[in-house]
Amino acid sequence: MSSTTLPGSQEPNPSQMIWSERLKTDFDLNKMHTFLEGSEHDSLETLRIMQQLERDPILRTTAHYYEYDKLKHREQTALKIGRLAQYIETDAPDFQTFQNRLNLIAIVDPQLGTRIGVHLGLFLGAIKGNGTEEQFNYWAYERGSIYLRDIYGCFSMTELAHGSNVAGLETTATYNKERRIFTINTPNIGATKWWIGGAAHSSTHTVCFARLIVDGKDYGVKTFVVPLRDANHDLHHGITIGDIGQKMGRNGIDNGWIQFTNVEIPKEYMLSKFTTVEEDGTVVEPPLAQLAYGALLGGRVTMVTDSFRTSERFITIALRYSVGRRQFKSKGKKVENQLINYPLHQRRLLPFLAWTYAMSVASYQIQSDYKTVLQQLDEGAKTEDFKVLSAAIDGLKGIFADSASLKSTCTWKCSTLIDECRQSCGGHGYSSYSGFAKGFVDHAVQCTWEGDNNVLAQNSGRITIQNVIKYKKDGKKPKGNYSFLLGASKDGYVLDSSNLHNLDDLVKAFDSLILRLALDSIEKLQKNGHDWDAIAAEKLSLSKLYAVRYMLYKWCQKLKLVQQSGSDGGITRPLVNLAILFALSNVESFGDRFLEFGILSPSAYKELGEAVDKVLVKIRPDVIGLTDAFKLSDFFINSVLGSYNGDIYNDYLGTIKSLNDTQVTKAPYTKALEGMLNRGSVASREKNEKSPEVLKKLSS
Amino acid sequence: MSSTTLPGSQEPNPSQMIWSERLKTDFDLNKMHTFLEGSEHDSLETLRIMQQLERDPILRTTAHYYEYDKLKHREQTALKIGRLAQYIETDAPDFQTFQNRLNLIAIVDPQLGTRIGVHLGLFLGAIKGNGTEEQFNYWAYERGSIYLRDIYGCFSMTELAHGSNVAGLETTATYNKERRIFTINTPNIGATKWWIGGAAHSSTHTVCFARLIVDGKDYGVKTFVVPLRDANHDLHHGITIGDIGQKMGRNGIDNGWIQFTNVEIPKEYMLSKFTTVEEDGTVVEPPLAQLAYGALLGGRVTMVTDSFRTSERFITIALRYSVGRRQFKSKGKKVENQLINYPLHQRRLLPFLAWTYAMSVASYQIQSDYKTVLQQLDEGAKTEDFKVLSAAIDGLKGIFADSASLKSTCTWKCSTLIDECRQSCGGHGYSSYSGFAKGFVDHAVQCTWEGDNNVLAQNSGRITIQNVIKYKKDGKKPKGNYSFLLGASKDGYVLDSSNLHNLDDLVKAFDSLILRLALDSIEKLQKNGHDWDAIAAEKLSLSKLYAVRYMLYKWCQKLKLVQQSGSDGGITRPLVNLAILFALSNVESFGDRFLEFGILSPSAYKELGEAVDKVLVKIRPDVIGLTDAFKLSDFFINSVLGSYNGDIYNDYLGTIKSLNDTQVTKAPYTKALEGMLNRGSVASREKNEKSPEVLKKLSS
Repeated sequence: MSSTTLPGSQEPNPSQMIWSERLKTDFDLNKMHTFLEGSEHDSLETLRIMQQLERDPILRTTAHYYEYDKLKHREQTALKIGRLAQYIETDAPDFQTFQNRLNLIAIVDPQLGTRIGVHLGLFLGAIKGNGTEEQFNYWAYERGSIYLRDIYGCFSMTELAHGSNVAGLETTATYNKERRIFTINTPNIGATKWWIGGAAHSSTHTVCFARLIVDGKDYGVKTFVVPLRDANHDLHHGITIGDIGQKMGRNGIDNGWIQFTNVEIPKEYMLSKFTTVEEDGTVVEPPLAQLAYGALLGGRVTMVTDSFRTSERFITIALRYSVGRRQFKSKGKKVENQLINYPLHQRRLLPFLAWTYAMSVASYQIQSDYKTVLQQLDEGAKTEDFKVLSAAIDGLKGIFADSASLKSTCTWKCSTLIDECRQSCGGHGYSSYSGFAKGFVDHAVQCTWEGDNNVLAQNSGRITIQNVIKYKKDGKKPKGNYSFLLGASKDGYVLDSSNLHNLDDLVKAFDSLILRLALDSIEKLQKNGHDWDAIAAEKLSLSKLYAVRYMLYKWCQKLKLVQQSGSDGGITRPLVNLAILFALSNVESFGDRFLEFGILSPSAYKELGEAVDKVLVKIRPDVIGLTDAFKLSDFFINSVLGSYNGDIYNDYLGTIKSLNDTQVTKAPYTKALEGMLNRGSVASREKNEKSPEVLKKLSS
Repeated sequence: MSSTTLPGSQEPNPSQMIWSERLKTDFDLNKMHTFLEGSEHDSLETLRIMQQLERDPILRTTAHYYEYDKLKHREQTALKIGRLAQYIETDAPDFQTFQNRLNLIAIVDPQLGTRIGVHLGLFLGAIKGNGTEEQFNYWAYERGSIYLRDIYGCFSMTELAHGSNVAGLETTATYNKERRIFTINTPNIGATKWWIGGAAHSSTHTVCFARLIVDGKDYGVKTFVVPLRDANHDLHHGITIGDIGQKMGRNGIDNGWIQFTNVEIPKEYMLSKFTTVEEDGTVVEPPLAQLAYGALLGGRVTMVTDSFRTSERFITIALRYSVGRRQFKSKGKKVENQLINYPLHQRRLLPFLAWTYAMSVASYQIQSDYKTVLQQLDEGAKTEDFKVLSAAIDGLKGIFADSASLKSTCTWKCSTLIDECRQSCGGHGYSSYSGFAKGFVDHAVQCTWEGDNNVLAQNSGRITIQNVIKYKKDGKKPKGNYSFLLGASKDGYVLDSSNLHNLDDLVKAFDSLILRLALDSIEKLQKNGHDWDAIAAEKLSLSKLYAVRYMLYKWCQKLKLVQQSGSDGGITRPLVNLAILFALSNVESFGDRFLEFGILSPSAYKELGEAVDKVLVKIRPDVIGLTDAFKLSDFFINSVLGSYNGDIYNDYLGTIKSLNDTQVTKAPYTKALEGMLNRGSVASREKNEKSPEVLKKLSS
């Protein structure tokens, strides 16, 4: 026993329960990890980096992390960035490895990843996307900022009164042809740059989004490099910067606001891959300017991966706890039942486990599609081969569409997952040391930034509808990931009682639902004078359905590869169960639509609940194995409720004792408390000035 | 203009938009407030207390509140408790007024309400509920703890390994008849008292839930007063207490853990209204012991009110922002559109506004029902009139059932409401100064404590099913709030295209759905060998449906009273619209069930979306009036996005400037940053020990 226990009493033993299930796991965890990570190479690479991160003394993240206030978080994040700057020097020129590092460290310290991501992904990403090769080489390599040296950048896009609508930004960059300079100005309070990550303290430079004004003419929003701080890290005059202060989460990032007051920058600081201003003020805009925002898609793609990784972490904690925790006795039983044995608990958590596996499929797929497109773009730019460039532009459109749906759907789902996992751990989920609290608030912003989820979902829904319209009107066949629309069934049951567990038919059911809902939306659109806002709810549903269908379809494809491989290490069985659960729980979520369009027969609908129950029971014995397969060490779990050995109660009490000295049992503010408890009577505090004696004196 | 704006640029003017809508409000805000608060008297009482709270210098709660760390929150909370202790002295003996005070201050500072609530509601509530009159008089009045004097109590029920299952608690209270004492002991780590609010620093005494052991026999869990700290506020020996540390929210409460090691208390410290131990160890348990937990229901009832109040606050912020904020231009428009004009934004927020009004109905109803029952209990106990007592027990059962459904449904809904309101404010919702962040994490625990929502929902669903079973089997008619089951339709459409906007028919539709789902569940139950866990999903739905039906029905009743009053001040029109929206959006939520059972015709289902859209458009012009009617002053709103005058951008920037000195633009940790940016090359940091020259030396 870990602490003294009196006879007649049995101390709880969650480790034993977790281990007994672990020892029965009958599939190959390495093969499962390979499935999750996409390839054997990637599986090994992930573990290699994880081991390096968890052993680094400065990157250490423990329960103390949950105690930090804003300042401490920012300070620790700065120290960690300094450490990671050393890694990037040795990783170079392989920046992909560094990106993997950031994605993985984000599992336990998302703010750290972001604070670097703003510099590398947004600041340098914007320079790469919008600047000439020479401009990128100067700012990134000659100055050293790609190694986090000399320059630290931020990304001044959002304004106080302008978020999602980039075209509506108001900051101006006015060209002065006599002096060959731009003057950057914030014309009113609404144009104050807002939420600028790194602006408050870290950044020396920014990429500023501002309206290009030449000879009084407004050429729309372009990008400019603007120095903010001098060699002494002091603000240049004309630059007003303040701290945005306390946020819901991610307080390790020093977000700031910026006002520019007649800040002059050389003409050459305008990023001019696409738009150029000649000395005399002539503005030249080539047709490929649409590529300017391409680099920004990287953030959305990464958020699919973030959602997957974050979900891995929190579903592991909740499921380990659900196996180790007992609550209420069943009739005739001597010990209380494990939480996970309750059908309701399975219904609450296992669909999220299935979603986590689905997100792994999405994450790997969209990451590799995006890499392909970026390579095509680079190649096209180098060779100036129109065919390659044109394919790259098509690919970019595909990533735009897929990421709009997947980013919004996965970040929302991950948010719900964290909160449901927290609630499933009862009161203990409310302890900061469970990890859920900071996990939730840190993740929450993913639903908002780099494309608000509702705005993105509207885009995605619209794209699906437009694909159908174009095919109906002009016979233009949907391409790429939308080609399923061609084969989708337009009428009749796709799902009946007989095929509720058939994955191919489940995919077809979603194909059909998407087509039917799109057709319905087109009808409604025509009735409403083509007001796309009037079908907002339909677009939202279509976006979510597109993501579900995407993940389910790619999952099935991947499963076939596993089966073809000959030696599956036993992973096919649990993967099929999870895929069926993923599909069926989503059929339940859209049950009314499936019924409305007659894609699901009423008898199949009646059996849906039991079909879900059946597959839950099949998955139940695998929950420890299916979460162990994520291979997240205790460093990445960082939760008193979810460590590998499952010694929940000792971990929990031990951590709390180590963080709070039990010899100190009085608060620093104890005087306030004791003063209240030992205060005198009302009469004495009023110096008896309302006593009968006094009142008598006063009245006589 | 509030700050200098250059010509040609237009500063945003949210106040103007909000005021222009405010001035058009055509219903009587006072009458609406009366509707919300239940009566003219209660409306006035609420405002009177609010004014007093917001003017008190110590109870002041401003944007600074969002900057506090755990220690500062606890210290501030202790100071505020000291202040409120003075109010309770003057409120006495009218403790209802003090309870109203706590409910209202909880809008802006929920942790304050809780930290006092643990002492007054749980500690003293348990003594009142379980102790004799003499015991209560001694601990409450003679010692002065009812005025927060001399004694501060906590409530030691939950244990580390035992949450919802009170019967499974392991702490022991062993009677020693020779010495006439009880020995309290924590037998193992799992029995450590956990989450005990106020234990870490505040409490001097606790009510401890422990198994009564007499002569080796276990009589189950009873309650005992145990002193924790002496006159010097130091811990008695045998008492081990530690700080539970950081929590998701409510860090102003000093939750602690307690281990008892052979702590001896006099026999007289056992609370013995129901169970008594005679000197010789004979245990006497009267039949009315079921009343022991009655006092605990107060917490659940209060949480319905909390959910209502919290929802009032956050829906007001989100709707004011949605009117003042512009985003994206519509075709041909000069200025961007207000957020609230987007149909999707209306769909996201207005159903929550309707829920808030629904919760006001539920809050008032269950509060007054609960008061009635408590009076009956008191009267019954005094007069020993069996009829009165029996009615009180029936009433208590009713409150148990209603509060199980309403507490779980309303706290969940409020949680979703806060998060959706936050997301609807885009990035600015993520700023702590918007209020959403702390609001969300503070509220989150309401879904877990004093009856985990899932456990409560299972209870509620089971009660509905049992009502139907008893009627079917024994012909026992459902009583009270369940009597609607008698008249509920068993087959055929209740809703068709013609009556989708008819409130009476909408109520009938929910009546019918509840009955049909209960009958279905009974069938499933019989198939599954009466395993109630197998119908967990159905019970969950039934609990939510019961709450929706309860609120809708009582709302319609209340509306009829308003209409009968003759002069409704114009509030009937908006109230009817809101009630229809509340009903229809819930029909949508349970759309698949309505379709499955044929309560909603397929054609009506097809028209549902448009029916919702229609009522949204009707409510749109009233959103400022409908939130102004809550009469929450800026003190209670405490959000830079939602103040009454709607000067969002100036409020926001002004607050952030006042909290963060803009003259300080370097971080205290700037050395870490600057050190990184200005660091030497890898080679120099390695003292050139990998240079070709060195390597040559080493190889030669």
